[in-house]
Amino acid sequence: MSRLSRYLPILDWGRRYDRGALSNDLIAAVIVTIMLIPQSLAYALLAGLPPEAGIYASIVPILLYSVFGTSRALAVGPVAVVSLMTAAAIGQVAEQGTMGYAAAALTLALLSGAMLLLMGVFRLGFLASFLSHPVIAGFITAAGILIAASQLRHILGIESDGHTLIEIVASLVSNLPETNLPTLIIGVTATAFLFWVRKGLKPLLRSLGLPARAADIATKAGPVLAVVVTTLAVWGLSLGDRGVAIVGAVPQSLPPLTLPAFSPDLLGALFLPALMISIIGFVESISVAQTLAAKKRQRIDPDQELIGLGAANVGAAFTGGYPVTGGFARSVVNFDAGAETPAAGAFTAAGLAIAAVALTPLVFFLPKATLAATIIVAVLSLVDFSILRKTWRYSRADFAAVAATILLTLALGVEAGVSAGVVLSLVLHLMKTSKPHVAEVGLVPGTHHFRNIHRHEVTTDPAIVTLRPDERLYFVNARFLENLILDRVARNKEIRHVVLMCAAINEIDFSALESLEALNERLKDADIGLHLSEVKGPVMDRLKATHFLEDLNGKVFLSQYDAWCALTEPRDTPRAAE
Amino acid sequence: MSRLSRYLPILDWGRRYDRGALSNDLIAAVIVTIMLIPQSLAYALLAGLPPEAGIYASIVPILLYSVFGTSRALAVGPVAVVSLMTAAAIGQVAEQGTMGYAAAALTLALLSGAMLLLMGVFRLGFLASFLSHPVIAGFITAAGILIAASQLRHILGIESDGHTLIEIVASLVSNLPETNLPTLIIGVTATAFLFWVRKGLKPLLRSLGLPARAADIATKAGPVLAVVVTTLAVWGLSLGDRGVAIVGAVPQSLPPLTLPAFSPDLLGALFLPALMISIIGFVESISVAQTLAAKKRQRIDPDQELIGLGAANVGAAFTGGYPVTGGFARSVVNFDAGAETPAAGAFTAAGLAIAAVALTPLVFFLPKATLAATIIVAVLSLVDFSILRKTWRYSRADFAAVAATILLTLALGVEAGVSAGVVLSLVLHLMKTSKPHVAEVGLVPGTHHFRNIHRHEVTTDPAIVTLRPDERLYFVNARFLENLILDRVARNKEIRHVVLMCAAINEIDFSALESLEALNERLKDADIGLHLSEVKGPVMDRLKATHFLEDLNGKVFLSQYDAWCALTEPRDTPRAAE
Repeated sequence: MSRLSRYLPILDWGRRYDRGALSNDLIAAVIVTIMLIPQSLAYALLAGLPPEAGIYASIVPILLYSVFGTSRALAVGPVAVVSLMTAAAIGQVAEQGTMGYAAAALTLALLSGAMLLLMGVFRLGFLASFLSHPVIAGFITAAGILIAASQLRHILGIESDGHTLIEIVASLVSNLPETNLPTLIIGVTATAFLFWVRKGLKPLLRSLGLPARAADIATKAGPVLAVVVTTLAVWGLSLGDRGVAIVGAVPQSLPPLTLPAFSPDLLGALFLPALMISIIGFVESISVAQTLAAKKRQRIDPDQELIGLGAANVGAAFTGGYPVTGGFARSVVNFDAGAETPAAGAFTAAGLAIAAVALTPLVFFLPKATLAATIIVAVLSLVDFSILRKTWRYSRADFAAVAATILLTLALGVEAGVSAGVVLSLVLHLMKTSKPHVAEVGLVPGTHHFRNIHRHEVTTDPAIVTLRPDERLYFVNARFLENLILDRVARNKEIRHVVLMCAAINEIDFSALESLEALNERLKDADIGLHLSEVKGPVMDRLKATHFLEDLNGKVFLSQYDAWCALTEPRDTPRAAE
Repeated sequence: MSRLSRYLPILDWGRRYDRGALSNDLIAAVIVTIMLIPQSLAYALLAGLPPEAGIYASIVPILLYSVFGTSRALAVGPVAVVSLMTAAAIGQVAEQGTMGYAAAALTLALLSGAMLLLMGVFRLGFLASFLSHPVIAGFITAAGILIAASQLRHILGIESDGHTLIEIVASLVSNLPETNLPTLIIGVTATAFLFWVRKGLKPLLRSLGLPARAADIATKAGPVLAVVVTTLAVWGLSLGDRGVAIVGAVPQSLPPLTLPAFSPDLLGALFLPALMISIIGFVESISVAQTLAAKKRQRIDPDQELIGLGAANVGAAFTGGYPVTGGFARSVVNFDAGAETPAAGAFTAAGLAIAAVALTPLVFFLPKATLAATIIVAVLSLVDFSILRKTWRYSRADFAAVAATILLTLALGVEAGVSAGVVLSLVLHLMKTSKPHVAEVGLVPGTHHFRNIHRHEVTTDPAIVTLRPDERLYFVNARFLENLILDRVARNKEIRHVVLMCAAINEIDFSALESLEALNERLKDADIGLHLSEVKGPVMDRLKATHFLEDLNGKVFLSQYDAWCALTEPRDTPRAAE
């Protein structure tokens, strides 16, 4: 693979494109396009944007991703969580329905795209790994609940707002008396139908003899059926006149050329939200891409993925869209429908462009309640509280991180929730390493092995304390070890030698080095030797570049057994060991 | 030691207080009081507060610390770095010289005191260890430069402001033409004299036969001499009329009872600065306390220190002071002068109270230039760029953290600098652990030992890959290891078994567990066995609580040698190893 085709993966797969791949890609594109039309409208609604923004955000971004992205099956466009985060971010700087709101969505997409591109260029894809799995799972679950709750207003046909669960519920309850009955009937029926499609249709189709893959795809087309039926109902029964909110006029046009707003205030206000949207979007996208690639033994390059997603978002910013990423549902459908290359995405974009020009009048009577129903059914499948039970059983620290993420996302909104989850994961990790396990070890009789004196029958010497810290030594735990050793020595006046068994020490940073130097001085004052054993190669190389080993009031032993033999034999002052 | 005396250390040392300790403490108190009078005035000037605030901040806080603190020699009061941080924090919410400015200083002290108390109650003393030694060293150096630069205006007798080096220098340069010559002469002379006292006086006194300790203390009294001489000069030559800025009227009074301001806006604006002042102050104080305690083999309890410092700051808030902490210079003088118990601090407080009531008229003609000179000489001794050289040689990551801290503190101010240092230290640590060292190992012939195949002559088997990750497995590196193993396996089609040698794995968190589960599935699909060896006890206990071991497509071996024997002998499919 040449250097250029690394940055332009299209050069790689495009060269080997043939008729077989073309027909597979075309079939997949038709299926995905049909599925994407209602989904794009729905997610635009969730983001608080006009419906066409969802369609536009699915056209140019897909094209750009197909040029720069590395996944063969990933379908890029609006997704539920990012749409919710977009609404939360823009809601703070502009009023929904205003020109400023749509312009801010463009700015958000541009900022997010620029950040993703920068992260890609500087190969910072690893930053996504700072989000732990439980935090992501908790966040997705809480975001799913928030999204479903926020869509209830469309099912009920009332006004409501809010970015936290309490705000949303309070707003819903206070407006409940204004519920519109026809809307409620459409909304509940559509929701029930879509749940049935998801749970009951596939087994039914299978029992009727349809192959598994066809049954799967038919199931995914359920929303299209709901859209068609409820649109016809609203049109036929003139439900629009009876208070049912409908999509209304959508411009018949290709994606327009748009210019994001650029005021410093706006950029400042959207900076952090854009960063979070970038990271969350990247994590979601890379998870989907890697899962699908693994099934076909293909490789995903995370840094190039950042560039692909960055280009897609920049594209969204200039063509009337809003932040996009690789979506789970649409990518799986694309994959299952047989997409072989990113060309399938390009064909999908073409299909959506045709829809944007030709089909938008057909959705005039589409009730918003149906779109809300498709969102609710889609996001509730993301809600999974089992992560709480699993982490509780496995590790309280992981449980704390996931519980905090869920509670804070629900109580304070998406940004606070995911930030808290990340910070808590890192702090809990640092706390764990700040008080590392330090085993006091002794010789297992008849062997050269040293084991924890509290777990095994071992030989010890009252004049020698051997400690094995099970952690890298760095600033967070440097003083802990120093204090632990000084306390241990202070408890027992017979001690003449302290041996640090360094087999599990993968690094000694500068703070820890200073701490060891201080420890050495303190032990020297007390006429106690400080020795090291089993120091790893890279750690030793660094120590040799300092004065520490020269000043050490003791020796460095290759093996702990050597240390034991040397220090027990002569029974002398520490100086003799030098 | 009873539970009560743990929280009230005074009950412990107070019970055993005798005449010998009393006389030692009294002598130390006299010496420290004399040194503290100019120092307190100077630091108040640095914080932008009226001079008496420095005196008040040295009285009640010392008394409270002597009741709650655990250090025998720590002297609590205004210190240079905290004074600078106070000026930076309050400068953002109020104008210097206004009532609001002084009231905000009280609020800052109260907030900081409350935070320290809370951290103490919740035993969060370990949080201070998140500041690495190089970051602290870099921060102190940069803060010293900022402080010295900010005091140049008093030496020149001009106006200037700014919280970053560029702002300060630009402001100085633009006002340079207004330099006041008499002020400049006093300032430069005082500075030169104080530098000479620090470098040249002690050797001189020693050569005149004075004992080392007495010479030390006389050296520390240098500022008092400078104060007396320059005050007399200003008074005698009426230099106040020639534009020399003087301290002026200081109220003759004991510390007044004051009430901090409490508006929500103010509390919000001061929250983060108060947190940083608390942490930086605590780190400075605990370092001094532990250094001094070590010399006498005494113990410091970090969590109780938080309570002592918290009480001192709350005291400062209600008695006209501003944030305080344990200072290096004053504590060392206290220690060298022979202080045996915190009673020395109480006597110092009494001495300062007498000074506040009786001596303040004497400082009317004291030139601010002299105070600035004492500050400059004191803080320049903190400036030490050798940390850059040392860390560069030892570890580039530590160097990056210290260099960023210094540059950002100078360029953006104290808060941005220290925040950047902390964040960078943590991120660099996470980056290091995100791509851990993973050794591929083989059997050292004739032994049961396994070593890195790239460093030693070892026996390997083409069907077996044994990898030893030298790091705890957690969310930051979970996917790295998964990808590394899949890449390794993909490179070589002969591989039938992957053995993870877990001797250096101190933890497997939930994310890493999920990663291992995914890895196991992927390897199972490829008909490759996944085995573990030398799993540590606590790690094994956790794994046993999950389904991982049941689903594992391979075995868990107690030792790597057992794994080797079992997997090389039968030469069979992985299933046979179960």
